[in-house]
Amino acid sequence: MGDLDMGMASNGLTRRFFLERLGRMGGTAMLLAGMDALGFGIGSALAAPPKLEGKPRKNRVVILGAGNAGLASAYELTQAGYQVTVIEARSFPGGRAQTARKGFSLTELGGATQNCDYDDGLYINHGPWRIPYHHHSTLHYTRKFGVPLELFNNDNDASFLFFEKGKGPLAGKPVRKGEVAADMLGYSSEILAKLSKQGALDSQMGAEDKERFIEFLTEFGHLSKKDLNYTGTPGRGFLVDPGAGTDPGPGKPSAPHKLNDLLDSGLWHMLHSVAEWEQQRTMFQPVQGMEQIPKAIARHLPDGMIRYSTEVQRIRQSPKGVTVDVMRDGQPETIAADWCICTIPLSVLKTIDHGLSPAFAEAMAKCAYAPVGKIGLQMKRRFWEEDHSIYGGHVFCDNPDINNIALPSTGWQGQKGVLLGYYNFGPNAAKVSARSPADRAALALDYGQKIFPAYKESYETSFSVAWHRVKYNLGGWGMWSDEARATAYPLLTEPDGRLYLAGEHMSYIGGWQAGAFESAWQQVERLHARAMKG
Amino acid sequence: MGDLDMGMASNGLTRRFFLERLGRMGGTAMLLAGMDALGFGIGSALAAPPKLEGKPRKNRVVILGAGNAGLASAYELTQAGYQVTVIEARSFPGGRAQTARKGFSLTELGGATQNCDYDDGLYINHGPWRIPYHHHSTLHYTRKFGVPLELFNNDNDASFLFFEKGKGPLAGKPVRKGEVAADMLGYSSEILAKLSKQGALDSQMGAEDKERFIEFLTEFGHLSKKDLNYTGTPGRGFLVDPGAGTDPGPGKPSAPHKLNDLLDSGLWHMLHSVAEWEQQRTMFQPVQGMEQIPKAIARHLPDGMIRYSTEVQRIRQSPKGVTVDVMRDGQPETIAADWCICTIPLSVLKTIDHGLSPAFAEAMAKCAYAPVGKIGLQMKRRFWEEDHSIYGGHVFCDNPDINNIALPSTGWQGQKGVLLGYYNFGPNAAKVSARSPADRAALALDYGQKIFPAYKESYETSFSVAWHRVKYNLGGWGMWSDEARATAYPLLTEPDGRLYLAGEHMSYIGGWQAGAFESAWQQVERLHARAMKG
Ligand SMILES: Cc1cc2nc3c(=O)[nH]c(=O)nc-3n(C[C@H](O)[C@H](O)[C@H](O)COP(=O)(O)OP(=O)(O)OC[C@H]3O[C@@H](n4cnc5c(N)ncnc54)[C@H](O)[C@@H]3O)c2cc1C
Ligand SMILES: Cc1cc2nc3c(=O)[nH]c(=O)nc-3n(C[C@H](O)[C@H](O)[C@H](O)COP(=O)(O)OP(=O)(O)OC[C@H]3O[C@@H](n4cnc5c(N)ncnc54)[C@H](O)[C@@H]3O)c2cc1C
Repeated sequence: MGDLDMGMASNGLTRRFFLERLGRMGGTAMLLAGMDALGFGIGSALAAPPKLEGKPRKNRVVILGAGNAGLASAYELTQAGYQVTVIEARSFPGGRAQTARKGFSLTELGGATQNCDYDDGLYINHGPWRIPYHHHSTLHYTRKFGVPLELFNNDNDASFLFFEKGKGPLAGKPVRKGEVAADMLGYSSEILAKLSKQGALDSQMGAEDKERFIEFLTEFGHLSKKDLNYTGTPGRGFLVDPGAGTDPGPGKPSAPHKLNDLLDSGLWHMLHSVAEWEQQRTMFQPVQGMEQIPKAIARHLPDGMIRYSTEVQRIRQSPKGVTVDVMRDGQPETIAADWCICTIPLSVLKTIDHGLSPAFAEAMAKCAYAPVGKIGLQMKRRFWEEDHSIYGGHVFCDNPDINNIALPSTGWQGQKGVLLGYYNFGPNAAKVSARSPADRAALALDYGQKIFPAYKESYETSFSVAWHRVKYNLGGWGMWSDEARATAYPLLTEPDGRLYLAGEHMSYIGGWQAGAFESAWQQVERLHARAMKG
Repeated sequence: MGDLDMGMASNGLTRRFFLERLGRMGGTAMLLAGMDALGFGIGSALAAPPKLEGKPRKNRVVILGAGNAGLASAYELTQAGYQVTVIEARSFPGGRAQTARKGFSLTELGGATQNCDYDDGLYINHGPWRIPYHHHSTLHYTRKFGVPLELFNNDNDASFLFFEKGKGPLAGKPVRKGEVAADMLGYSSEILAKLSKQGALDSQMGAEDKERFIEFLTEFGHLSKKDLNYTGTPGRGFLVDPGAGTDPGPGKPSAPHKLNDLLDSGLWHMLHSVAEWEQQRTMFQPVQGMEQIPKAIARHLPDGMIRYSTEVQRIRQSPKGVTVDVMRDGQPETIAADWCICTIPLSVLKTIDHGLSPAFAEAMAKCAYAPVGKIGLQMKRRFWEEDHSIYGGHVFCDNPDINNIALPSTGWQGQKGVLLGYYNFGPNAAKVSARSPADRAALALDYGQKIFPAYKESYETSFSVAWHRVKYNLGGWGMWSDEARATAYPLLTEPDGRLYLAGEHMSYIGGWQAGAFESAWQQVERLHARAMKG
């Protein structure tokens, strides 16, 4: 664990801090939010890979790592006529972009080996799982290589919020997000519309604006035109749904929660005018798992270009080139090239005999890596759909061991399904990951049972990951403090000799595949410009 | 056209009236909204068909119409051991639940014949197109018969709003919905938070509530903690998206619109605390078109049970049974049964020699049918995705000839696509439908071109429908005024002799397939209860 995490752990994550973060992010990741606060941006700038024109003389490139950054580098350089070798420690392409399904095996550092035994066709994206519509680079590759996409339901008004730490009648009770939104915003609109009517805005708004503003609040908050009261709205759901004939006929409306109870509950932390940029509709997932993206890129590389199960152990440079000592099945080998693109996570790279300059090494050490955990629980029945009409989306919880339970956006109305039982970060991820896989599942099940009566009885098997304990990652993603972003990071965007760093950590869209792709595009372009000079 | 439509047309639909309706409904259908105002409910009550136990003696049922109501009646009664005959005027099952694809042909009353010539695999759901997650009855059949579903993207923050009739710099400009939401709600939150801070709520809120309320507004509206100002938020989008390295690095933030400009534009009509009940996420569509639902039910009926291309011309009853005179290819035939379930739209039924009681006939006449039009435009390039990053959702417009342009929620990143060019209602539907198919397309293209520069150049072919001009429908759906709902409707829920009415019009979820299914379930149950008595 890096400085930052320790810092966060020792500062203590107060509930309010956690909720603010969780809330502000539309419920994704506390640490992603932390990253935002620390100067990480969100969104993806480049829509297409660079055009690499001309034939360089020195054209042998060794790429370290066959995650998305390494694969994109290899593909674009190969297209431009480079001779590329990719060294990958794992036996498959994609790095973090993994999908666990039957037969997938993972041994965490100092942990048990898990052999995923989901039913055929079921899987969990235990790494990246969703793609924002504006991540042009990621979507460039899905389009180019025809990876079929389906919508990822990232925001479901019908899904529950479950906060235990507040007060009042809504604490510890699953409440549908749509109810909370309708009521909190209904009351807020009522209050503001009435104040406005009473003249409270007269100093800042003309008569015409004021009239339209009240009209806006009335429509937005579903207020009664007559008296500007909020007394509920069909959009928050019915007590008895409308139907056929005269019974149920029009159904029975539901009554709103009390403002005071809502304020007590803390559930309002989950409401936002707009979701954070990278959490906004529309989001996608590849059909049959995120691994389909790297697999598709790898299929479009020449056979044998990627050397799998081959670990980088030593990197050396001379003014003329780069040599990389690797080990495969106990067999050492040395690969020589003119250039190197290194996409190994900095958490791992700093443990390797990399021979990089002291300034570079020092800068690398300033990037902290996030502890992150996920668990996929196979359920023999899709009770969330069948019993609760929740189709996809998240159940946001105020317990940071869990954070959110996510319901799958695939296999609608099927027999079984794999749901995400927790998505935890930082100290909580560290804590939960100290448990055995079975104990992690038990923790997830105990919690989920509070929300869904059929949780435990439907459970069949689990697969969990703690990325900080995964050998070739040692963390979920890189995090830069403001200070490191200002000092260390810019240095690392420059080559050290003939070696260029690429990967999600070399971007302001860290923790996203687009960060890996775009940093690869950027470094490949720079390398090419230099190679063309001779 | 029925009373109601004429009423609406002659009252004149002011722009405000239209916008209110459009806005309140999350942008669906003015007349759907009109229906709501007139006492139509929204939502769906029954999760499963009735259990029909026991063997009735008189068990021959003739079902008129093989739309969803007729099909569901036939299926459930067949399961319960009834001898069922279904009479259907069209050559295919599904009634309104049609999908236009290559080879589909439609001749409107007094209109040209359109032969749909979309490319293979492309289609438009020119009738029903989306299924709310709480329409349990519709979802019952998709699940039971394994009709694969995919998400229908009904709310896309990245999509445009396009209002021409307002004032100021935002009038006549496509503006992304997320920007409008972030800014309108940001400013509203700022105003209310500041008023609250200044003590404006002190009479109605205790100190603790006040503090939390301000905290809520700060988080919800993305206000600065320091001074409660709203100055934009990443969630509204960037001027330059964040990316790799140091350039673009963190990207460049965007500046909010002015509150006054937003109020001038009228775009705020499209913002709501929660979407209307039947427009809420999650929504579905069957893979490969809505027709897959009725086709699946029809496949599960005994061969030959549905007599296609057979028109009901006369219905007669005696104390002992029902006879239906039908015509097929000029050949008359009479079908005798113990019971009749009639799912023919009332707009059509009242033109048939039905022999029903005068009170019944009078009540039927009180149901008005909505003029509704849709057009599907095949585009040779998915410019909305490629040029604008809009993946599904709607472009809401304040021109009631158009209302909304809908981008397809299928075929993501494909070569071509069919988008919905307009969805118009009432007098506007009547007006537009008076044009030839080619002229309707021209109208849609002229309008779309104002929003998307590549609209016209990408256009290939169109298919349009005006439901009020479709022979066996004569309108999109039934509409009840408050008065008719109170007097006529209840009468029609009772059988007239041995004839039971079913169909979307016999529900409070009219204009939705669930209304058809649930009224079928209800009438089948009543018929069975009576048949069991002897
Ligand atoms: C839990 C989680 C959730 C996420 N969610 C999302 C999401 O929803 N959407 C999204 O777009 N992104 C998401 N991300 C981020 C995304 O996974 C990463 O940004 C991206 O996959 C990183 O790609 P990369 O090529 O930079 O690194 P990696 O994928 O880690 O690739 C590095 C490669 O180097 C190899 N390697 C390491 N050491 C050696 C060695 N010594 N010798 C040889 N090879 C070595 C590794 O095996 C690996 O293949 C998520 C990540 C995590 C962990
Ligand atoms: C434009 C539009 C959009 C819609 N959008 C949605 C949506 O998004 N989601 C949704 O769930 N619902 C939607 N609906 C509503 C949905 O289509 C209907 O509620 C439902 O399909 C009606 O089913 P039904 O069986 O009651 O009537 P129909 O489907 O109309 O069935 C009646 C049947 O009777 C037959 N018939 C008529 N006259 C005769 C005769 N003389 N002899 C023999 N047979 C005859 C007809 O051919 C037809 O098959 C939409 C409808 C329209 C028009």
